[in-house]
Amino acid sequence: MRFALAQLNPTVGDIGGNVAKILAAIDRARAEGARVVVFPELAITGYPPKDLLLKPSFIDDNLAALEEVAKKTVGIAAIVGYADRNSGPVGRPLHNAVAVCEGGRVASRHFKTLLPTYDVFDESRYFEPGPIELRNQIVVIDGVKVGISICEDLWNDERFISRRLYHQNPIADLGAAGAQVLVNCSASPFVLDKHDFRLKLFGGQAARFNVPIVYANQVGGNDELVFDGCSVAFDARGNVIAQAKGFGEDLVCVDVQLPGERDEETSKARDEETKRRGDEDVQTTSSLVSPVSPSLIPIGLDSLYHALLLGLSDYVNKCGFKSVVLGLSGGIDSALVGTLAAHALGPDRVVGVAMPSRFSSDHSVNDARDLAKNLGIEFHVVPIKDVHDQYESLLLPFWGDRGRDVTEENLQARIRGAILMAFSNKYNHLLLTTGNKSEVAVGYCTLYGDMCGGLAVISDVPKTMVWDLSRWINAKFEREVIPVSSIEKVPSAELRPNQTDQDSLPPYDVLDGIIERYVEDEEGYEQIVAAGFDAATVARVIKLIDRSEYKRRQAAPGLKVTSRAFGFGRRMPIAQNYRSWE
Amino acid sequence: MRFALAQLNPTVGDIGGNVAKILAAIDRARAEGARVVVFPELAITGYPPKDLLLKPSFIDDNLAALEEVAKKTVGIAAIVGYADRNSGPVGRPLHNAVAVCEGGRVASRHFKTLLPTYDVFDESRYFEPGPIELRNQIVVIDGVKVGISICEDLWNDERFISRRLYHQNPIADLGAAGAQVLVNCSASPFVLDKHDFRLKLFGGQAARFNVPIVYANQVGGNDELVFDGCSVAFDARGNVIAQAKGFGEDLVCVDVQLPGERDEETSKARDEETKRRGDEDVQTTSSLVSPVSPSLIPIGLDSLYHALLLGLSDYVNKCGFKSVVLGLSGGIDSALVGTLAAHALGPDRVVGVAMPSRFSSDHSVNDARDLAKNLGIEFHVVPIKDVHDQYESLLLPFWGDRGRDVTEENLQARIRGAILMAFSNKYNHLLLTTGNKSEVAVGYCTLYGDMCGGLAVISDVPKTMVWDLSRWINAKFEREVIPVSSIEKVPSAELRPNQTDQDSLPPYDVLDGIIERYVEDEEGYEQIVAAGFDAATVARVIKLIDRSEYKRRQAAPGLKVTSRAFGFGRRMPIAQNYRSWE
Repeated sequence: MRFALAQLNPTVGDIGGNVAKILAAIDRARAEGARVVVFPELAITGYPPKDLLLKPSFIDDNLAALEEVAKKTVGIAAIVGYADRNSGPVGRPLHNAVAVCEGGRVASRHFKTLLPTYDVFDESRYFEPGPIELRNQIVVIDGVKVGISICEDLWNDERFISRRLYHQNPIADLGAAGAQVLVNCSASPFVLDKHDFRLKLFGGQAARFNVPIVYANQVGGNDELVFDGCSVAFDARGNVIAQAKGFGEDLVCVDVQLPGERDEETSKARDEETKRRGDEDVQTTSSLVSPVSPSLIPIGLDSLYHALLLGLSDYVNKCGFKSVVLGLSGGIDSALVGTLAAHALGPDRVVGVAMPSRFSSDHSVNDARDLAKNLGIEFHVVPIKDVHDQYESLLLPFWGDRGRDVTEENLQARIRGAILMAFSNKYNHLLLTTGNKSEVAVGYCTLYGDMCGGLAVISDVPKTMVWDLSRWINAKFEREVIPVSSIEKVPSAELRPNQTDQDSLPPYDVLDGIIERYVEDEEGYEQIVAAGFDAATVARVIKLIDRSEYKRRQAAPGLKVTSRAFGFGRRMPIAQNYRSWE
Repeated sequence: MRFALAQLNPTVGDIGGNVAKILAAIDRARAEGARVVVFPELAITGYPPKDLLLKPSFIDDNLAALEEVAKKTVGIAAIVGYADRNSGPVGRPLHNAVAVCEGGRVASRHFKTLLPTYDVFDESRYFEPGPIELRNQIVVIDGVKVGISICEDLWNDERFISRRLYHQNPIADLGAAGAQVLVNCSASPFVLDKHDFRLKLFGGQAARFNVPIVYANQVGGNDELVFDGCSVAFDARGNVIAQAKGFGEDLVCVDVQLPGERDEETSKARDEETKRRGDEDVQTTSSLVSPVSPSLIPIGLDSLYHALLLGLSDYVNKCGFKSVVLGLSGGIDSALVGTLAAHALGPDRVVGVAMPSRFSSDHSVNDARDLAKNLGIEFHVVPIKDVHDQYESLLLPFWGDRGRDVTEENLQARIRGAILMAFSNKYNHLLLTTGNKSEVAVGYCTLYGDMCGGLAVISDVPKTMVWDLSRWINAKFEREVIPVSSIEKVPSAELRPNQTDQDSLPPYDVLDGIIERYVEDEEGYEQIVAAGFDAATVARVIKLIDRSEYKRRQAAPGLKVTSRAFGFGRRMPIAQNYRSWE
């Protein structure tokens, strides 16, 4: 049975635009000879729609759109994610649903059973779980029992996770109910190294229940989340038989051999399938013909690079901006963000502004200028000394006998923020903010200063990874894209004479180690100290992280690339007094 | 049976401090002759602990604290909220729990069955629901069957809510299982007019199941949420028999007559109970002795005033600030916030700063000065013209042939923000931001400008209610606290000559009507138009609300007082394209 994996990049809430993509993919899949085309979870609304789901008119519009899609399913079955109403009198008002559409109508409706409600996921806020009677999740197409599951339904496998959060295992139930092939409609966001885990988990599920799996994932950036795509199909032994690319839209067809089906039956159709179409977005793969190309799936720093490009460009484009502006300090963080912006959007859509103060070294402006030259972006120098002097003489009378302190340092950062926002307002550029995860963690940043901006591109990238990625970019492009002096200089905020980051912070490899344990792994003070970190340093870093929550609450959304990013997936109180290190 | 309602104000995460409050209340309740003292939900951790719950060390510390509390329960039973581990191998790792502690040990543990996961509540993120076997939720004290429930468990009554979200009704089950009295440990935040609803709902449940209810609620501000207290007890006919005060800590004792018990039995104890203790925080009420004083519970604007005072003072104090600063424009919003701050903290902890620009009327500074004088707060005038000129001459060369626009308006607001943050940094004042809900809704505010601040005091108060509350304050104090000219002037941001809010916005009564329908009631475009609002105005306002999401994402936490505030309880995507009005 030939399936098409329709890996689309929807815009949240853009029901009309998403339907247009779905209809185009249906036509293409039909032309490719697919019997069934599988779309991502909530393909009609885009994922995650968040509280748009609370608007009855939004649900109505999405239901009308599903009917519109169903009308076009002639000669092909389409499995499409949408939000349905819970028709029962009790329970949350919606279901996270997929419809099997065929013959110009909605043939059946299926509901997600396992609702992720952790990290960035809030599904129990909106949805009632699907029926306990999992038989309802099986649909028969051409006499083949197709088991329908949605994203998390496929993840509850005690062999791969530390704790089963759910009492049901829909995949086991579908297997027991005789499903001959499993379809999974997903919206599974990127996290470093997560795709490797998916392959193991899904392949393991396929082999365990001796059933092929067809997994269609969303691709594209939606606010903090980057969906990497990488849709994939497995045979009943758990081998990958088709794979869509990472970080771009794709439509991949695959002939799935059903358990019990003899190899010859499938191989008959082999010849007509070997032709790979010229259209670069379309790829036809057969389980028996084309080997899966691993080069489609970036890994390691390569995947990080592509995730950040996609998250950045989709945020800018989906918000309707033509261009971006950012401050270039000559340091590594802004150099990396500038590079990512130029690569994601093209250099003609990026403006860099250097804003030297009385404490900036000449080297800083030169490094910023070199970067702008390397990237081919517009570049301006706006010295802030005069405005800074004017502020200081204005405010001095109010300071009594209080000397210089962090006030004056922050003021410089805030002047820069105001200048960048003026560029943003005057030219309708989106301002990118350039803080990394290490700074954001410990609050080594100025609220309303360098934290100004609409998108925090690398706020989930620790400083040590900023260096690694910068070196990787220079190696990939085989030239000095990011000035080596930006990479190699001692990090400094340059807000007072001879300042370096390490005046205030432990070395970054130590800091990043503690942050990873405390933020990503939820380790406590004692555990981190037991792992070999200096106790006083651990206490200091934890305290800084906890006390900086008020800054992060007002931070721009940042692209999530680790297992736990600051922002929507980490919900901490501000006025709290837990002191684990005392 | 004599119950004590221990209405405490915990600080989230401050386990040591919360335990100290619990132990003091146990001693006091014992001295009052209470047989059982009831504490709020999650009293040991404070509510809501949010992602602190994900830290295993935090759970350990809270469990150790429970043991410490239990040791002190000699001669009294204490029903105490805490977070327990789910001992089962499957399911979310925690329970929202209360322990019945008696005889120096934890006698039994009970788990919340209904887990609110909507608006500001995220309980399914952390907790596994309690057992289906509700008999486990009954504990026998002195031969009396006491049914234990936690907050939401008491709310699933189809007679009072539009849709039952949950399939269980723990109260019906406890009633059927023979509970003779129901205890409810709560952390139920303030919303305007909500307490009236609680009284109806709880009284209705008591009467329906013919069982007295003892309800202990948390009090105090924790970030966005203000808990109003108003703990209350009902007899088996649903009559209020005791009531703790609103917006302050309290300990109220009440003799609850059990169904079947003769009136005389209870009345025997009457005489010793009539004495009301001198300590103003302690009040002993008997169902048969003291009538309930409705004056303890503020209603309407009175309750709004007290909620804002409590939310403001707790945020400032729990964050460890000694003082606050705010900009005083001469307008009504900053006048109201300045007044609330002076009333909440005392005038010696409040600093007002007027920052006139070239567009400010003399009247504005005078009104600000009058207010400061009325309140008795420190007051400064910092004119921004010179800094503004300096910025403009610095930036002009970069603007090419582009004329003046919103850039220059925003710059003024950002200069003011930077000045206020300089005061905040130099003196360690918390900066209060003064925007109202109407402005925040439509984005009539400047990010990193007037939106600067650690707490948005009135960001959930619509402009029309700002006027009402200001007039109410002047009436309450029988003098012009807030200058009448601030109340009566035509609203203006004063960012360009002769500007008024109504140049950009519909009249505030219309605007607030649309906002309430769209934000609080989730009505769509068509519904709002059908209610009689002008279609073009509705489309314009909805568009402004949707497009301002990026500003609100970076807004300070704001005190929630309506059924739907912006912030944690309203989670909207930014890069979205739902256009319901097209």
